Amino acid sequence: MGDSLPRSPLAPSSFPQLPVIKGLRLCAGAAGVKYQGRNDVMLAVMDPGTTVAGTFTRSKTRSAPVRDCQAKLGGDSSAGAAILVNSGNSNAFTGHYGQTSVAEICAAVADITGLPEARIFTASTGVIGEPLPHDRIIAQIKDLNDGLDATALEAAAEAIMTTDTFAKGASAEVTIGGETVSIAGIAKGSGMIAPDMATMLVYIFTDAQLPQAALQAELSRLCDRSFNCITVDSDTSTSDSLMLCATGASGVDVSDSAEFSQALEAVMLDLSHQVVRDGEGATKFVEIQITGAVSDAEAKTHGLSIANSPLVKTAIAGEDPNWGRVVMAIGKSGADADRDLLSISFGDVLVAEKGWVSPNYREEDGAAQMTRDEITIKVDLGLGDGTCTVWTCDLTHQYITINADYRS
Amino acid sequence: MGDSLPRSPLAPSSFPQLPVIKGLRLCAGAAGVKYQGRNDVMLAVMDPGTTVAGTFTRSKTRSAPVRDCQAKLGGDSSAGAAILVNSGNSNAFTGHYGQTSVAEICAAVADITGLPEARIFTASTGVIGEPLPHDRIIAQIKDLNDGLDATALEAAAEAIMTTDTFAKGASAEVTIGGETVSIAGIAKGSGMIAPDMATMLVYIFTDAQLPQAALQAELSRLCDRSFNCITVDSDTSTSDSLMLCATGASGVDVSDSAEFSQALEAVMLDLSHQVVRDGEGATKFVEIQITGAVSDAEAKTHGLSIANSPLVKTAIAGEDPNWGRVVMAIGKSGADADRDLLSISFGDVLVAEKGWVSPNYREEDGAAQMTRDEITIKVDLGLGDGTCTVWTCDLTHQYITINADYRS
Repeated sequence: MGDSLPRSPLAPSSFPQLPVIKGLRLCAGAAGVKYQGRNDVMLAVMDPGTTVAGTFTRSKTRSAPVRDCQAKLGGDSSAGAAILVNSGNSNAFTGHYGQTSVAEICAAVADITGLPEARIFTASTGVIGEPLPHDRIIAQIKDLNDGLDATALEAAAEAIMTTDTFAKGASAEVTIGGETVSIAGIAKGSGMIAPDMATMLVYIFTDAQLPQAALQAELSRLCDRSFNCITVDSDTSTSDSLMLCATGASGVDVSDSAEFSQALEAVMLDLSHQVVRDGEGATKFVEIQITGAVSDAEAKTHGLSIANSPLVKTAIAGEDPNWGRVVMAIGKSGADADRDLLSISFGDVLVAEKGWVSPNYREEDGAAQMTRDEITIKVDLGLGDGTCTVWTCDLTHQYITINADYRS
Repeated sequence: MGDSLPRSPLAPSSFPQLPVIKGLRLCAGAAGVKYQGRNDVMLAVMDPGTTVAGTFTRSKTRSAPVRDCQAKLGGDSSAGAAILVNSGNSNAFTGHYGQTSVAEICAAVADITGLPEARIFTASTGVIGEPLPHDRIIAQIKDLNDGLDATALEAAAEAIMTTDTFAKGASAEVTIGGETVSIAGIAKGSGMIAPDMATMLVYIFTDAQLPQAALQAELSRLCDRSFNCITVDSDTSTSDSLMLCATGASGVDVSDSAEFSQALEAVMLDLSHQVVRDGEGATKFVEIQITGAVSDAEAKTHGLSIANSPLVKTAIAGEDPNWGRVVMAIGKSGADADRDLLSISFGDVLVAEKGWVSPNYREEDGAAQMTRDEITIKVDLGLGDGTCTVWTCDLTHQYITINADYRS
């Protein structure tokens, strides 16, 4: 179905030019797992010394590949690493057969690449509950390994798409001590997107040097303010995986480098926003800025309550400046709020304050904000210093069309 | 907008015949608050000695009438009581003006009915954030009082509708010690319906005798297993109010009467299910039975996670037996689950067990279940004795149509 959906109106004009990440080679191929006539599998192989960090869905029904990746994180990095991803089948809720599929794929990749099985990470995305035809994937591994290339990130991003309408990539380069460090990432995700877990499939690579513990800490910290602050439909995938791999091939140790952290955060924010921009049926990209909450955690609770509200999201789809629904979503969130201290703005238009509509608010000013492709909703609780920004999209007929028909 | 929506395909064939509740008289009228050409206000007046219980939204941005009702519960019941409800405007997030509106309406009702202001309860339902034109309501009170009648429950149910496509009523009669006790209730609600608060506007009357504390305890207990177990769209209203009034006019004390409790529960379940059946855009009524959870609370968490999942609800709309999305919703709920102990059935069709699709499951059997108007999803966690049943509807194009246009 992914192939037939129109490209999101919120998509970037084209896939970005990504830098080569030293120590990384990739290849995409067509295994015919479910989709025909397109690539549906990608292999990434990284040099010895590559450290690997990851965050994953906290779903109690997470998939076999997620469980396998979690178990392998933090292992010996001396031998390098590989990642194999397929689309079209998530290998989730497939019982012991699912674990067998993962084991067989890992064994085959290890055999052909010469890497230890403990350094082979896999992911699967697509329909839940159907057996993964892993033989079709295994049959492609030799060709994938033979075709490995340093410039195949875009092909890899395309191979992992499901209901995505565009391939997602982002990059940054920073100079540290006169040396250039590169970061490049790819992502897939469009529906079954909710925060507070890892999210979707995201692979970020850098040629920086960073020990695994530091790499993991940095990934977790930045994930909380990027991927964990987006939502399309409040539904959390069984397969969400975000991996960050540092090949070290630049020779630059980025421990405690603020520049590197900033660059990595920029890449993660860019990719996470692209996922929202490709939200199923999305026509509006919505940033929700919460300030004045009792704590950052309560700010996030309010932000996600607004971002996940079907009534707020349908109002945005209808270009209706329906701030009453924002009031409703704040009221139901469970976090602290005081009606008379709240203020709400759409973009720069102050809509409500002191427990009621702002005296200078004109409906046409709010309506003008809602006609934009990118909408900002600002809420100040007036209670404390807690802040959070979350991102979401609108809820449209196209979401229903996609999800009443598509078996994911 | 309510007038132009087609009647829900899940609606009962007609409004039920309701018994007369001794000690209760009602009248509906047209104040022109927002809607034209229909009734939009109702007054109920009850005899001296009537005890009044209520549960209300826990929203932090709850409306002025909700706050006023909460403050008045538990007061002296010797003088009787009155309830005045308008539709078209919720008087929520209307600042101090909202409180003034409530006070002026209560003063006018007290003046004309001769009841003390402390026994006048009001509710408003409709658009949030616009000033309530309370003068239009006050102008109708004398006519409403003059027209009070014991048989006007259906007219009252119609007057409080907003996006509802049918008026909702339910009743029961029980014989206790040779005497008949009657219960009759009305409700409105269609969108912005979520549990764990009170819910919507619901008024239940009985001529039973029950002290206020016992009445309140009974209402709260039964609310937790009826109205607090339904959801249309996970969004919680700022105006939710459920009131139960016992006029005592039957002369029958129902303290500790199991028959009365069962009859009251039946009325509350019936009304709560009618709200789901009138869920905005609903074409399927869905009962979700959770068993085998660690606790009843965890069973409810799982049930609501399934019931509120946009992906589950759109799959049901598409008549797709997509049990993978049920697995997803269980996994994300936060409550305990073990993939390999779970079993899932659609109606009597066992779909998944032991961590995977059931070996005897045939897709056509699941698909046949999904073509029904009323669908049962059964989930057994296999962990403990916790159970809960929740009710919801599907998520359709019509929900988007209603909510991308309607200002509620």
